[in-house]
Amino acid sequence: MKKYTKLYNLVKNMILTGELQPGDKVPSVRKAAKMYNVSLTTVQSAYFELCADGYIIAHSKSGYFVSSIVHHQPAEEYKNEQNNVRYDLSGGIADPESFDFSLWQRYIKSALRQSDRLLSYSQPKGEYDLRSAIAQYIKEKRNVITSPDRIIIGAGVQPLLHILCSLLDKNLCVSFPDKSFALGMGVFSDYGFDIHTRDKDADVIYVSPSHMTRWGDVMPIKRRLELVDYSQKHHSLVIEDDYENEFLYNVKPTPSLYALGKGNIIYIGSFSAMLLPGIRISFMVLTKELTEKYNQNAFRYAQTAGKTEQIALCSYIRDGHIRSQTRKIRRLYSAKTKTFAGMLQQLLPNAEIEIGENTLQIILATEWNRSPTEFEKAGLRVFTEKYQNNRITLVLSPSGIPNGELEQAAQILADVILSHK
Amino acid sequence: MKKYTKLYNLVKNMILTGELQPGDKVPSVRKAAKMYNVSLTTVQSAYFELCADGYIIAHSKSGYFVSSIVHHQPAEEYKNEQNNVRYDLSGGIADPESFDFSLWQRYIKSALRQSDRLLSYSQPKGEYDLRSAIAQYIKEKRNVITSPDRIIIGAGVQPLLHILCSLLDKNLCVSFPDKSFALGMGVFSDYGFDIHTRDKDADVIYVSPSHMTRWGDVMPIKRRLELVDYSQKHHSLVIEDDYENEFLYNVKPTPSLYALGKGNIIYIGSFSAMLLPGIRISFMVLTKELTEKYNQNAFRYAQTAGKTEQIALCSYIRDGHIRSQTRKIRRLYSAKTKTFAGMLQQLLPNAEIEIGENTLQIILATEWNRSPTEFEKAGLRVFTEKYQNNRITLVLSPSGIPNGELEQAAQILADVILSHK
Repeated sequence: MKKYTKLYNLVKNMILTGELQPGDKVPSVRKAAKMYNVSLTTVQSAYFELCADGYIIAHSKSGYFVSSIVHHQPAEEYKNEQNNVRYDLSGGIADPESFDFSLWQRYIKSALRQSDRLLSYSQPKGEYDLRSAIAQYIKEKRNVITSPDRIIIGAGVQPLLHILCSLLDKNLCVSFPDKSFALGMGVFSDYGFDIHTRDKDADVIYVSPSHMTRWGDVMPIKRRLELVDYSQKHHSLVIEDDYENEFLYNVKPTPSLYALGKGNIIYIGSFSAMLLPGIRISFMVLTKELTEKYNQNAFRYAQTAGKTEQIALCSYIRDGHIRSQTRKIRRLYSAKTKTFAGMLQQLLPNAEIEIGENTLQIILATEWNRSPTEFEKAGLRVFTEKYQNNRITLVLSPSGIPNGELEQAAQILADVILSHK
Repeated sequence: MKKYTKLYNLVKNMILTGELQPGDKVPSVRKAAKMYNVSLTTVQSAYFELCADGYIIAHSKSGYFVSSIVHHQPAEEYKNEQNNVRYDLSGGIADPESFDFSLWQRYIKSALRQSDRLLSYSQPKGEYDLRSAIAQYIKEKRNVITSPDRIIIGAGVQPLLHILCSLLDKNLCVSFPDKSFALGMGVFSDYGFDIHTRDKDADVIYVSPSHMTRWGDVMPIKRRLELVDYSQKHHSLVIEDDYENEFLYNVKPTPSLYALGKGNIIYIGSFSAMLLPGIRISFMVLTKELTEKYNQNAFRYAQTAGKTEQIALCSYIRDGHIRSQTRKIRRLYSAKTKTFAGMLQQLLPNAEIEIGENTLQIILATEWNRSPTEFEKAGLRVFTEKYQNNRITLVLSPSGIPNGELEQAAQILADVILSHK
């Protein structure tokens, strides 16, 4: 077993057994290296894996802390999750009002009538007409100019990253300056890539410019230009995961990195957040060079997205519904976030409450000296960003709470917080 | 660049430039090691990658040959494939008669009415009720006894293998005794596992007992018992990809390895071949140990299969339709294979024609001295298993050809073969 794996297991076990509690500070890299008599690199590798696996969280200035994610998602919970949770504020839930089910049903029904197409496997890249429709759509919306040949469809971002990892040289160093994307870090780390979370200094830089933090910070135009400039000078590849770009409402529209770059940007987009979380269709625009590599190896890949939904989505986009859907959810969710934040501020005058830049998340910081499981006991699912020194920071996404129940959800949350002062 | 990568690129380029033609014998490992002044292991690694990537094919007794797969699937072809190919005999196409579209439509429509469920992401493992239905189904059908908690759903076998690879220790050695599964070999090789195609001598053994070769050989019970016994003695993990088990018709029903094993078998099944190729739902039964590892890391995985189709499939299975569907396609495809083989034998009395054990594929060997592209020019897509010494071996799957057009397809194939004698 490698030294860093040993250290990884050691710390992980301390967390799982409760010897280290959520919010506890983990020894600094330098300190741990001394304590366990290993090199700084060994500690860094172990800590990186622990971050990627969600056990600890890095704070650039203050070091590493035990996260609460492990306690939020024990294995058994999945089975009964729908029974226990009354209000899910952890994100990823859509409002029934946000989606026109009967409209989508019409497109699915029409897709199912195309039985000839459904009898064969999808092309590895995905259906050609959907790729054409996506090319047109991202050109108009994000100035991402490409041909359908360079677009790969997949059932979510994860399967696309698997394809990407198989196309990249394993000796490359990959950086994740937006530390919040644990899922992506996990994929690259599984393939054995050298990974860190520094800003630059990498062959491949993975960013989510429209959602840089869990609370939706947006990358300013100056930083975008810098990043593109840096990547060109250093011949780095940039992966632009344009997650939640559709929701940008309060900030000025910012150009995509792809539009600013000169052919060294991979653009990733997804429809799950726009339509329904259960619809698994994402896409990736490869660079010219990687497209050629993919084409030579196309027989190695099977398309993961279902054909029926691909056919339906193609017509849905062509008929202009994606545009009206974007306007609708943007309006709906942005208003909801503001209303909910206002309610919380009234109920919790001493808490620090802020709305994230993309108007989907609320950051709430308050005094707290009990276990974060208290929220779950009250029927709330929340995301704990930080918990230390009797202070807790929560990231709250009210999108999934029906408008009529916002007040109720805010009241329960406030009661939990106030009762434990 | 590693030595074996250099050799890999060298041979690959010789194939892509046409210096080596489909069917040409590649220098033996010993010979190549001398020619290029490298070790036997370097050559073996390079050849293995070339096999995994589909450039060459291994024949246990006679060495390595250039495959024709590269010529079958050039990048540009995907775009226009439906225009050029009149009859696709390469497999993976379903007969319109095989599937009751209006029945499936009813289930999809009913799933789309469950809007509450569609508003949230699927659990990482997939919908709980579908996993329950699958547990019940594989218990009755293949004596695979497990709990829904150990079942992981995914959009095809590939995403499931990605999860599996992330759970396994990268130092393990993985063997693929059934050499035909290039796609699976590719996935494991991308993760850096040590891979070979020997029968045993590995920590993980990947087999497709119901489809051991491209022409559907079935693993006999004696070999099954041996394999299970070996794996238990050597503490190896067996991955049983039960691909096309539904079609076994002519051979005695053989027990699954899972049922014979003692907890060290991972069972993989899929619904794409049974329903429609465009429906991407497969599943994997993990061992107890790997389930625990998955549960600890569940937050790292996103479900890839669409929620609507998961909900629909669950009711479809519960209502017993999967059983009648199995009987229907088994009858339909087995009769079709026999009819088509008979037609070919009449038209080509000098060809060697045999039906594969699972009655889905036909092996046809005949004299031939032209390029395999002649078949494509005539509007046929076929799979070339071997081509050397003026003799070609094709694997033909007539499943997708409507019954009324079998004669026509057989005639075109015979014409191409006879005109080039």
